[in-house]
Amino acid sequence: VAPQLGENIGASARAMKNFGITDLRIVNPRDGWPNSKAINMSVGASDVIHNAKIFSDIKSAIYDLELVYAATAAARDMNKESVLSRDISTDLVRDNADKIGFLFGRENSGLNNEEISYAHKILTIDTVKDFTSLNIAHAVAIICYQLFQNLGKNTSDLSKINYATKDPKPQLSEVENFYDHLFDKLESKNFFRTSEKKNHMSQKIRNLFSRIDNLSKSELQTLRGMITVLTKDERKYDE
Amino acid sequence: VAPQLGENIGASARAMKNFGITDLRIVNPRDGWPNSKAINMSVGASDVIHNAKIFSDIKSAIYDLELVYAATAAARDMNKESVLSRDISTDLVRDNADKIGFLFGRENSGLNNEEISYAHKILTIDTVKDFTSLNIAHAVAIICYQLFQNLGKNTSDLSKINYATKDPKPQLSEVENFYDHLFDKLESKNFFRTSEKKNHMSQKIRNLFSRIDNLSKSELQTLRGMITVLTKDERKYDE
Repeated sequence: VAPQLGENIGASARAMKNFGITDLRIVNPRDGWPNSKAINMSVGASDVIHNAKIFSDIKSAIYDLELVYAATAAARDMNKESVLSRDISTDLVRDNADKIGFLFGRENSGLNNEEISYAHKILTIDTVKDFTSLNIAHAVAIICYQLFQNLGKNTSDLSKINYATKDPKPQLSEVENFYDHLFDKLESKNFFRTSEKKNHMSQKIRNLFSRIDNLSKSELQTLRGMITVLTKDERKYDE
Repeated sequence: VAPQLGENIGASARAMKNFGITDLRIVNPRDGWPNSKAINMSVGASDVIHNAKIFSDIKSAIYDLELVYAATAAARDMNKESVLSRDISTDLVRDNADKIGFLFGRENSGLNNEEISYAHKILTIDTVKDFTSLNIAHAVAIICYQLFQNLGKNTSDLSKINYATKDPKPQLSEVENFYDHLFDKLESKNFFRTSEKKNHMSQKIRNLFSRIDNLSKSELQTLRGMITVLTKDERKYDE
């Protein structure tokens, strides 16, 4: 999300490829795209750079994913589950998702709370207490390393261990449609009052719903249906 | 060992400090020392850069250590134990050493066989098969991360778990004295024949002795004593 230096994009691509991860998605790179510094720094991973997808917002970048982690050092004042990188494989098995994304923030200030609200969980790399700020490409390298060490080529095998059957999960674009629907309805009822409160409250709601463990597609449809029914104009029944 | 870019020295220092490791030793930095690019790239870890010790050879850089790992991707044609980074904590517990060093090579060509022969073991970061070349600072970050995740502040506790008593280990300068002594003796007996063969054979001998698990100080003295006795000029007895 909003990376500043092409060198760090290139170094991240190289680290991804070392550990078999190639789907790089970039939201609003500061210096535009393509970026020659990114290509130079990627060394043997220029294919990852050339195949990178560029987006103008997080929502469109995660549209087809099922589970998103936000990599951040700070424990936020946010009711969101936090997972240590060394426990990531256990967490992935529990969560049973196939398409998983990891959000990394800009070099100088990381991810802001609005951006984190698009993630289901916070992912933290444990460091010494008094020097927690990691270089962005180092953070990418460590997460990709940890995924590869624990899961290797057996990600799909592992994800089936604890689940006899598997309900389909919604794509995140379907979840976003649900939020749009919900927020529209809330707005129409003047739930948010001011636009400032709307930002704050919509993040809070997102964070709350994104903590529903293993939410299935059909459960999401149920939620959506509930909202529709709850906000239905009663006069229609009266007529 | 012989790092080429100041930026990578700085990035490595930062990653070390993230995980509580601060004793940086640099053998023959290509661009001399101090290096302003190293300081700039270290961000909050300039103390690690300022306290770095500079050496002109590996032998003097490791003089006070007890156990040395050489970080390298390639499996070498060398009879030396190889450890995966994800198993490092188990290996450290087994080895029972207090002062441990990790050798990282130059960016373009890593460590050569002569340099690796100063290490007891090879340490490898498991990557995908067709893209094994890691950025040097990423490799440092991953090793430091792995050490911190497994051992944290309890390194000394862990190292005592499996050993009721602990024989003192030799400093590596004592081991080097042993090698000097041995090679002198071998040379005087014309064991090496040519200087080319001397390089090859001395590496082989180093690699062989460095695989003695948990070698104690008193065992080293015994070895040295054996060499001395074996090569003693027999005429002395005759006189």
